[in-house]
Amino acid sequence: MHWSRWGDPAEAGPLSESAFALVDAFIGTADTPAVDPASVRLSAVLGQELLDELAGIVGVEHVLTDHDSRLHRTRGKSTPDMLKLRAGDGSDSPDAVVRPGTHDEVAALIAWAVERHVAVVPFGGGTSVVGGLVARREGYAGVVSLDLVRFDKLLAVDTDSMTATLEPGLRGPAAEALLAEHGLTLGHFPQSFEYASIGGFAVTRSSGQSSAGYGRFDSLVVGLRVATPQGGLVLGNSPANAAGPDLREVVMGSEGAFGVVTAVTVRVRRLPAVKVYESWRWDSFAGGATAMRTLAQAGVLPTVLRLSDENETQINLAKPAEVGGDSGGGCLMITGFEGTQEAVDAKRAAVTALLTGLGGAGLGEDEGWSSGRFHGPYLRDSLLDVGVLVETLETVTFWSNLHRVYDAVKSALTSALGEGTLVLCHISHVYETGASLYFTVAAKQADDPIAQWMGAKAAASDAIIDNGASITHHHAVGQDHKPWLAREIGPVGVQMLRALKQELDPSGVLNPGVLIP
Amino acid sequence: MHWSRWGDPAEAGPLSESAFALVDAFIGTADTPAVDPASVRLSAVLGQELLDELAGIVGVEHVLTDHDSRLHRTRGKSTPDMLKLRAGDGSDSPDAVVRPGTHDEVAALIAWAVERHVAVVPFGGGTSVVGGLVARREGYAGVVSLDLVRFDKLLAVDTDSMTATLEPGLRGPAAEALLAEHGLTLGHFPQSFEYASIGGFAVTRSSGQSSAGYGRFDSLVVGLRVATPQGGLVLGNSPANAAGPDLREVVMGSEGAFGVVTAVTVRVRRLPAVKVYESWRWDSFAGGATAMRTLAQAGVLPTVLRLSDENETQINLAKPAEVGGDSGGGCLMITGFEGTQEAVDAKRAAVTALLTGLGGAGLGEDEGWSSGRFHGPYLRDSLLDVGVLVETLETVTFWSNLHRVYDAVKSALTSALGEGTLVLCHISHVYETGASLYFTVAAKQADDPIAQWMGAKAAASDAIIDNGASITHHHAVGQDHKPWLAREIGPVGVQMLRALKQELDPSGVLNPGVLIP
Repeated sequence: MHWSRWGDPAEAGPLSESAFALVDAFIGTADTPAVDPASVRLSAVLGQELLDELAGIVGVEHVLTDHDSRLHRTRGKSTPDMLKLRAGDGSDSPDAVVRPGTHDEVAALIAWAVERHVAVVPFGGGTSVVGGLVARREGYAGVVSLDLVRFDKLLAVDTDSMTATLEPGLRGPAAEALLAEHGLTLGHFPQSFEYASIGGFAVTRSSGQSSAGYGRFDSLVVGLRVATPQGGLVLGNSPANAAGPDLREVVMGSEGAFGVVTAVTVRVRRLPAVKVYESWRWDSFAGGATAMRTLAQAGVLPTVLRLSDENETQINLAKPAEVGGDSGGGCLMITGFEGTQEAVDAKRAAVTALLTGLGGAGLGEDEGWSSGRFHGPYLRDSLLDVGVLVETLETVTFWSNLHRVYDAVKSALTSALGEGTLVLCHISHVYETGASLYFTVAAKQADDPIAQWMGAKAAASDAIIDNGASITHHHAVGQDHKPWLAREIGPVGVQMLRALKQELDPSGVLNPGVLIP
Repeated sequence: MHWSRWGDPAEAGPLSESAFALVDAFIGTADTPAVDPASVRLSAVLGQELLDELAGIVGVEHVLTDHDSRLHRTRGKSTPDMLKLRAGDGSDSPDAVVRPGTHDEVAALIAWAVERHVAVVPFGGGTSVVGGLVARREGYAGVVSLDLVRFDKLLAVDTDSMTATLEPGLRGPAAEALLAEHGLTLGHFPQSFEYASIGGFAVTRSSGQSSAGYGRFDSLVVGLRVATPQGGLVLGNSPANAAGPDLREVVMGSEGAFGVVTAVTVRVRRLPAVKVYESWRWDSFAGGATAMRTLAQAGVLPTVLRLSDENETQINLAKPAEVGGDSGGGCLMITGFEGTQEAVDAKRAAVTALLTGLGGAGLGEDEGWSSGRFHGPYLRDSLLDVGVLVETLETVTFWSNLHRVYDAVKSALTSALGEGTLVLCHISHVYETGASLYFTVAAKQADDPIAQWMGAKAAASDAIIDNGASITHHHAVGQDHKPWLAREIGPVGVQMLRALKQELDPSGVLNPGVLIP
């Protein structure tokens, strides 16, 4: 991954002419390049004695301290993370990178970290956009990035139970490739798919574009192995049970603060024989949202279901390759169907009948959407280059509250960032009882774009919590969402998290500062 | 509810002639009547000073100490619970029964219990079969049953989001009646439906006969309000989110040990216009189980799906009213379809095609099954009257492990209880990755039937855990399953539960002895 941008360095490039013209007209541009990577100021390297001890655990070849290795594991991929690096601030870098190869090595590293009071930051894909990789440094003897890259195996496949056990360092494409050898798929395709890891998906409760068909990642997980400072934890003997609180649901969402996940058993599905995507047009966001709700509550959800609001439709952000093109107005909905030809035909017919009856206008098949999907984040960085601040945030609430939250967040962002701010939104995850809202914001960068965004983010987060929604549908908590998590779960909920943290990690070496308010 | 039997006292009666003949031939009978209820020895009544304080919180009319009120809230409805009461042992009775009417009164009662170090046992329907109502008495100034009977309101209905907020004391039929006024249903029909409560469903992770169509109760819950010794806890602003560990999943399954649930927000569905039940015959249990797995993994589950093994089919226990009748051999499967006529027709056609293709023989519609369903537990008590020990236990595992667990549990029970033991089994809850196994056991009562059963139960529980299944699919933990829960979640899992207990209820007054190993 590029050190200061999303994705493949070879793919990084300037805006298309049409996009640049659009941005220049609506927002204005300025040349704001990144510094040279060699000039980014990192933290001091971990002391030699500690490095020697790490080498004794994992082998010297798996302890990295070079500038590039540490730079590439500095923070995540949020816009503030990018802005800091682009300005040369690498102060949150790890002091060393260590790459264990086994559960026992992870356990030994944790024991070492407790003994030496070194902060440990589990690293999967490095794609956090909520400060999940930014550990508190004060009070620790150092900060080590525990890179799970060597946890790259498919450990078991059970085609009777349709489960597979994957190692946490597998990134999306590698996991899918291993499963495909067995004719299987996870069906988990978040926008971070190309870089994010199985372990990361689990501990952040990730959700992908096909969530309507395959489910959120937390609903795919049936088993977990975790290394904690208190010892190993193995959970999951069944799809569901009544054996007390579901501790899998405590590990999921724990963001490395309770332990390091070393194996994940997930529900899998047969690779679909057929994939079809379609576009629909709605006169209004409200009309499209009602149609989504109707589908969810009728139990006839397609595999992919996404609705852009009027602004996002106009910018055509659903198809990053076509930004600036002609959207046709109204609100764009994408539906996708995956499975056997028979299942796809049946579901598609039912969905088509319902959507048509509710006033949707079918625009036909749309192969372009899926292929361009993972290119979205590149756009953000091309915009940063020309002085435009771009960031996303998301929430989830019950259907009856959706439009209130939508209005409140838009209003908060516009008030905070001022005239000329673009606020785009889509719904991409639906449930019987509610749906997510995913906002993309673009504004001209101020002199201090980090402070500019933090103010807007705080205003939007307040609007989310004040209006009874969740601070995050699928981005997780990290450092950035902690104050609002505390409001969301209240003081007793915070006590519960702190008690679990204190019990599992009493010396506080696991991802300190992350998750726990 | 009858003091020493399941259900309505008016419905209690002797076995049918055919059932008696069957039992007499296979197991043998003996007259083993219960003692007179007035002669059951209860605990001492709570001291007057404490009673006066309780009356100050809830009003004197809501503090009950009479023999009958305390007898009816003594333990739950497991066979050992019944055997103890039938023998006159009421030593686990509450010293008083208190009936708060509001969340604030519950909070005040908890504060009082902490102050006076009195054990509090939340009471909904009193239907626990795992010792969930048997608090530890030693070290406490008394034991009070906190009866939630006055929490009987439907607090809110949101037909946009298809959710409803119910008070925890509502029993199944009352909750359904309130929802039916809005054309809605929970769709949660466990065998305990007529007596068990909404709060109990939530804190025990109940699962009902229609789980394939409506989901387990824990999957219906989107919000909870809880009174804890640390204050109120309000959870649930969305269908799902990524805001850290899902604390709803910690309250669910907590069995009153972390707090008292005072409101539950659940997903609801439209009342089905059509309900159709059918019978199918399979040559073998394995063949029927494979068919269930195929349905689940193809995503074409009926609303109800149940398969009796050869023994249960022969006894015809799927239809309690017809026990002893002609079963026709093989294995009986029940399928049920609920919804709109269109949805039922479509699902039924898909299921019929799959089951037929897999070798099932359709036996036609079967209206009898559903209506007789809730009468099952009465049979147990009629058998206790004639010297037969009858009890049930259940588990859940992944599909690939199902037959190993089935064989192991049957073998353990037969070994423990000896020749002539009847072990019947059915699968009634299926998932893509696995299924439940529900065993019914009948044997001639030994001189000490409680010790007899506890030995058999321990052997079966060991077999469950040794073979990697869960100690309970939907009966919960209570006192009875604690040792096996500890093995299931391991020492670190136990530490997590203890840490939550210590944090939320540091003085340990909430249902002491229950759940936490």
